[in-house]
Amino acid sequence: MYIKNVNELLITDIHKDMIELINEGLRSADPVIAIKRNVELVGNKLRVVDEHVDLGLYERVLVLGIGKASFKMAQGIESVLEEVIDKGLVIMPKGAKVDASLLKKIKVFYGNHPYPSHDTIRSSLELIKLAKEANKRTLVIVLISGGGSALFEVLPKGISVHDLTKLNELLLKSGADIREVNTVRKHVSLVKGGQLLRYLNGAKVYALIISDVVGDYIEFIASGPTAPDTTTFRDAYEVLVRYGLWDKVPKSIRERIKLGVEGKVPETPKPGDPLFNRVRNYIVASNIIALRSIAKKAKELGYNPLILTSHMEGEAREVGKFIASIIRTVKEHDIPVNKPAALIMGGETTVTVRGSGVGGRNQELALSVAISIAGLRDVVFASFGTDGIDGVTDAAGAIVSSETMNMAKDARLNLKEYLENNDSYTLFKKLGHHLIITGATGTNVNDIAIALIR
Amino acid sequence: MYIKNVNELLITDIHKDMIELINEGLRSADPVIAIKRNVELVGNKLRVVDEHVDLGLYERVLVLGIGKASFKMAQGIESVLEEVIDKGLVIMPKGAKVDASLLKKIKVFYGNHPYPSHDTIRSSLELIKLAKEANKRTLVIVLISGGGSALFEVLPKGISVHDLTKLNELLLKSGADIREVNTVRKHVSLVKGGQLLRYLNGAKVYALIISDVVGDYIEFIASGPTAPDTTTFRDAYEVLVRYGLWDKVPKSIRERIKLGVEGKVPETPKPGDPLFNRVRNYIVASNIIALRSIAKKAKELGYNPLILTSHMEGEAREVGKFIASIIRTVKEHDIPVNKPAALIMGGETTVTVRGSGVGGRNQELALSVAISIAGLRDVVFASFGTDGIDGVTDAAGAIVSSETMNMAKDARLNLKEYLENNDSYTLFKKLGHHLIITGATGTNVNDIAIALIR
Repeated sequence: MYIKNVNELLITDIHKDMIELINEGLRSADPVIAIKRNVELVGNKLRVVDEHVDLGLYERVLVLGIGKASFKMAQGIESVLEEVIDKGLVIMPKGAKVDASLLKKIKVFYGNHPYPSHDTIRSSLELIKLAKEANKRTLVIVLISGGGSALFEVLPKGISVHDLTKLNELLLKSGADIREVNTVRKHVSLVKGGQLLRYLNGAKVYALIISDVVGDYIEFIASGPTAPDTTTFRDAYEVLVRYGLWDKVPKSIRERIKLGVEGKVPETPKPGDPLFNRVRNYIVASNIIALRSIAKKAKELGYNPLILTSHMEGEAREVGKFIASIIRTVKEHDIPVNKPAALIMGGETTVTVRGSGVGGRNQELALSVAISIAGLRDVVFASFGTDGIDGVTDAAGAIVSSETMNMAKDARLNLKEYLENNDSYTLFKKLGHHLIITGATGTNVNDIAIALIR
Repeated sequence: MYIKNVNELLITDIHKDMIELINEGLRSADPVIAIKRNVELVGNKLRVVDEHVDLGLYERVLVLGIGKASFKMAQGIESVLEEVIDKGLVIMPKGAKVDASLLKKIKVFYGNHPYPSHDTIRSSLELIKLAKEANKRTLVIVLISGGGSALFEVLPKGISVHDLTKLNELLLKSGADIREVNTVRKHVSLVKGGQLLRYLNGAKVYALIISDVVGDYIEFIASGPTAPDTTTFRDAYEVLVRYGLWDKVPKSIRERIKLGVEGKVPETPKPGDPLFNRVRNYIVASNIIALRSIAKKAKELGYNPLILTSHMEGEAREVGKFIASIIRTVKEHDIPVNKPAALIMGGETTVTVRGSGVGGRNQELALSVAISIAGLRDVVFASFGTDGIDGVTDAAGAIVSSETMNMAKDARLNLKEYLENNDSYTLFKKLGHHLIITGATGTNVNDIAIALIR
C-alpha cells in the first residue's frame, strides 16, 4: 500500500525522506490504523480514545457505518472487536472495489455518490432497521467518513429521491461551501444533523469519525448524523436564497423548509438535547492529525518541522508562489524555521480551469512551486490527495524539486506552458520521476503538501 | 510622519498594537534612521556597520547618491557627518517634493523615472564629474536606492537617450522580472554593474543601500553601480530573445550587445575584479530588516512573532486566502505559533485587474483576508506599501479585522463584490476606519503584511 512507484521517485536523499513523510501521512489517515490507534480491547474493558467502557454493562455491540472509508474502518473495528460485535452494516459508494468477504460480522451495502439514489435510500433503510434493534443495553459504534451525506439518507414524507437528487445537484454546483450545503441537507432529512440517534433508543454511542471537512467541524462531516446541529431551518432557507436556489429547488423541498421555519415540523436536535447524553463523537483521523504525524516523523529524520496551516485554500498556482516564497526565505534567512526544514501544510486548493490539459489541484500546486523554486538547491516539494486521487488522473499528486526546471529544459518541456494549459499530469508523465501513484487509498483527510529544504 | 490618521484607526487594543507595528516597520525603512543606525562618528573614527575607519587616512569625503530615497539618505548622512563631508550630489526623481535647502553640503539633481531622460543623463554627468575628483585618499560614500536604474545613466557611444527610453519601455512591459531587466540595463551602460567604480580612481568606497528588490540582490538594486556583476552580455542577449524583444529594440542596442558578446567591448567588472578591493556594499534598510524590527516590537507588545516570508508573491486575492488559512490554524491549534501571535510577511503581491474599481495590491490583499477571516474573533490584519503608496490611491494600504465583514453588512456593502471589481479603496473609504494614510514616505522596502491573532 502507500506509494507504489517508490523506486522511480528515489532521486536524491531528500526524495527518500519525502517518500517516508508522504507514507507517514497516508498511514496516519489509514482507517484501519486510525481505528486501532483509538480502540483497544483490554480484558473486558474497551478503550475508546481516552474513555474506558466495561463491556459487561452491555448486552450487544452493533456497528453502523457510512462513507467512503467505512469499509476500511469496519475492517479496523473487526480486527479489534470481532469477538464482541453482534452485527454491523456499512454503506459504501457503489463501484468501490471492496472484498466484502473480508468482514465477518459487518455487512456491506451500497449507495450513490455524490448524488444520492434509490440505492442510497434502500441501504439506509437497512441501516435504520439494524439501528432500531438497539436499546439502552446496546453499545453502538458508528463509523463516519466523507461521502456519508450522499450515501445515507431517509427522506421526510412527500420528498422523492428525484427531488433529493435535484437538490443535491443544485447545491453542489452553486458555489456554496460544504457547511452551507450540509446545512440544507440536514433539514431535508430524517437521519442527518443528529437524527440517527432518534432510532437508537438511548443506546450508548461512540461515533468514530474520519474528517474530510477542512476545519474538522463534526456536525458537517457526512452531515453529522450523531452530532448536535447548530443550524436551523431558517439557515437552510437563507443558504438557498443566498445562492439563488430557492425558486429552483423542487416544490417539496421548499414546502418542507417552509414548514420547518414555521415550526410545524420538528427541528434537528440541538446542543444540550438529552438525545446526546450517552453519545461521544471522536475524530480518529483528520488532516491536522496527519500533519502532526508527519511533523513528528520529519523530526526523527533530522528536519525542523513547521506546520503552517491545516486550512490551506486558494488558487493552486498562486498558493504555489506563496509557498515558494516561504521556501526562499528559509533558504536565505532560516526564517520561519532553521534548515534543514520541513514545511507542512494541509487543506484543499482550487483550480480554475483555463486550458484543456490533464491534471489535478495537487499536481498543479507542485508544478507552480517547481517553477518558483527553480535556481535554488536541495529543495523538494510534494503535494498529494490522501484519497490517492488527484483530479481525473491516476496519480495522487506529484513530487518536484529545485532540479525539476533543469530536467524540463533538458527534455525541452516548458513548465510555464504546461501550467497555463492546466496540463500538469501530462508534463510530469513526460518528465518521469514526478508522479506519486498510490491508487485509491480508501480514506480521505484532504490534501497534504510538504516542502523539505536543506 | 508615519501613520497620519491614527485616531481613526484606533478601534480596539489590537488595532492599537497593529499601528505601533506598522509604524515600527516604517521607522526601520526610514532612510534617515537607517543611515544613523549604521553610520556613526566616534572622535576621528567612522563606524560603518561593523567596520571602523580612521578618517585621518583620507583627505576628502564625497557623497554620491541615486534613487528615490537618496535625498533622505543624504539628510541622514549629513546629520552624522556634515562636518567632514566636502561635497556631495544625489539624483532624485523629478517631481519628488524635497526641500534641497535642508542639505548643507550635498546638492540635489533630478532625473526621470521610470524611463530615463535627457535630465537623467545631464544629472548623471554631473555626478560622474564629482566622482572623478576622487582618488586613493578620498572616502566616497555612495547612497543607493530604488529607482536608481532610471535616474543614473551614462551611455556608451552610439546609443541615444531615445534608444535607451525605448529599451526601457520594452523591458518594463515585457513581463521580465527586475533581475532580467537589470541584466540588460547593465550591459547598455557605462555606470551600472559596478562600472561607477571606474570613475573613482581607487577611492575607498562605502555603498549604503536601501533594497527595493525582493531577495535583496545587491547587484540588481539600482542595477548595482558599485557591485560585482555576475551577468554577461550573453545573458542580456538571452533575456531580449526570451521576451521576444531582440528584433524590437533599437539597432544601436543590438549592436552594443553583439559587440559585447563578441568580446569587442569590455564586460562589466566581475566578482574578484581588483576594482572592488576597497569597496564595501552594505544594505542598511530592506524588507527583512523591517520584518525583524516588527517581530522584535511585537514580542515587546506580548505577541509571539513569526516571520513567514520576505519573498511574498502571487495574486493578492489568492495570497489573502492562504494567509487567512494560517490565521485559522493559529486560532484553532496554536499552529504554527502560539496565541497571541503576530504573523509577519513581506514582499510584493500582484493584482490582475478585472474590474473598474480603485485600489492597490495591499488594499486588495487586506480585503481578501477580511472576507476569509469573517466569523473569527480578535484578529486584525494589515498590509501596506513602505513607500506609502498603494496603487493609484492616497492610501498606503489597509487594516482589516474579523469584524470588517460585520461592519460591511451593517453598512450594506458586499465585500466580495468590491473585491471582484478591484474596488478595495472605494470600499474602505465608504466603510471608514480601514485605510492607512501615510503620504509618500521617501523610502521603499516593498510591502509588509502583519496579522495579529489573540
